[in-house]
Amino acid sequence: MGEITSGYNEFTIEGRNAVIEAFRSGKEIDRVYILDGCQDGPVMTIKREAGKKDTQIKYVSKERLEQLSKTGKHQGVIAIAAAYSYGEIEDMFALAEKKGEPPFLFLLDNIEDPHNLGAIIRTANLAGAHGVIIPKNRAVGLTATVARTSAGALNYTPVAKVTNLAKTIEDLKKRGLWFVCADMDGTRMYDLDLKGPIGLVIGNEGEGVGRLVKEKCDLVASIPMKGDIDSLNASVAAGVLAYEIVRQRLQ
Amino acid sequence: MGEITSGYNEFTIEGRNAVIEAFRSGKEIDRVYILDGCQDGPVMTIKREAGKKDTQIKYVSKERLEQLSKTGKHQGVIAIAAAYSYGEIEDMFALAEKKGEPPFLFLLDNIEDPHNLGAIIRTANLAGAHGVIIPKNRAVGLTATVARTSAGALNYTPVAKVTNLAKTIEDLKKRGLWFVCADMDGTRMYDLDLKGPIGLVIGNEGEGVGRLVKEKCDLVASIPMKGDIDSLNASVAAGVLAYEIVRQRLQ
Repeated sequence: MGEITSGYNEFTIEGRNAVIEAFRSGKEIDRVYILDGCQDGPVMTIKREAGKKDTQIKYVSKERLEQLSKTGKHQGVIAIAAAYSYGEIEDMFALAEKKGEPPFLFLLDNIEDPHNLGAIIRTANLAGAHGVIIPKNRAVGLTATVARTSAGALNYTPVAKVTNLAKTIEDLKKRGLWFVCADMDGTRMYDLDLKGPIGLVIGNEGEGVGRLVKEKCDLVASIPMKGDIDSLNASVAAGVLAYEIVRQRLQ
Repeated sequence: MGEITSGYNEFTIEGRNAVIEAFRSGKEIDRVYILDGCQDGPVMTIKREAGKKDTQIKYVSKERLEQLSKTGKHQGVIAIAAAYSYGEIEDMFALAEKKGEPPFLFLLDNIEDPHNLGAIIRTANLAGAHGVIIPKNRAVGLTATVARTSAGALNYTPVAKVTNLAKTIEDLKKRGLWFVCADMDGTRMYDLDLKGPIGLVIGNEGEGVGRLVKEKCDLVASIPMKGDIDSLNASVAAGVLAYEIVRQRLQ
């Protein structure tokens, strides 16, 4: 899963050349802030590099850049590097094979709250999952808050970023994985067979699992709801489903 | 469970007489801020009233009081009222009886993070628990953040505040409840019988369940941990345990 830094600090890369260099060296960039209106050559290069990697670009005011800057020498461009390095899906298969277990992956369909993402990575580690897959766009990345909330799990559990979650599910199906997502209209989770190689899909906090992703899932599981309100917190739902998988695998 | 306000705003009660009046009318006060050094008659009365109800007092600077004040007329005293009214344990028994179910309560041993408390109340509601009991001291109360994070569950699930959690457990045992707490050295949760009238005890984020409280518990349950780190997030652990109780009750 590549190099993993031990600290929790978010770090910024400032200035045109430094940011271009960071992209070209393959460093993981979560987001680029560009001074609104900046259109010169190096900035266009940065936009192109960001585009190639589906990195989010935010156009901001001079004041906002100055706030974000730690060196005072941003030249209109600041990149935010991931606090932790991302892993690869291959690392997850390797981990499962090493442990002699059927692969068990988490796929998060646009979790936005860093506390939820951190808690879910923590749960993935303790439930014995081999990795967590998140989408590049919209969702939160591996920020310092996520690292802290993961309580160290990021040191052990690979997290990979993919461009298109639905396509990743398709690819992984060819490698023998079954996919289960949570939804209220699904089959009661106790009545599903969740023992084999499995990908557990957790939806966004407000909207649940997206339609395109849900259509790719083999199984839709429901958590029994005996209360008056709509849904569990996303990280609690992930925990309850993951531990139903753990329970079935222990049988 | 008494009156429940529908809004999420924390509200402040300012000025000596207003705060004394609030205490005497039985309003739930989560905390009182008093200007450091203030010792006059009305302030002594407020300290006495706060003492009677185990309400936390914080001595603060004039600047801090001015920050907290919404009216500018605090006269050295500001009380923070709970965003929601607390319920009574009797309400929980009444709710269980109305539903024709064996009582199922959550007891939280000093949860400090309002997001965790809110998520746990949300889980309690959806898992069909009849109430949540929290201690008066140290733990977080029903603040606006808790209310928001509970996603509406506070409108349905009574939350009671007690002075001494260990003593409450003793009292509730006489009414037929069994108590289970989570700890790594416990019996695997799948191997325990959790079907009867039950109190689920969840520990503090850092320290787990306190010794005195743990000694009162009939059962110690462990969640299987297959990973590299120590423990699940408190609200995730509460969800996993609560849903093991749900699963057993559905059988």
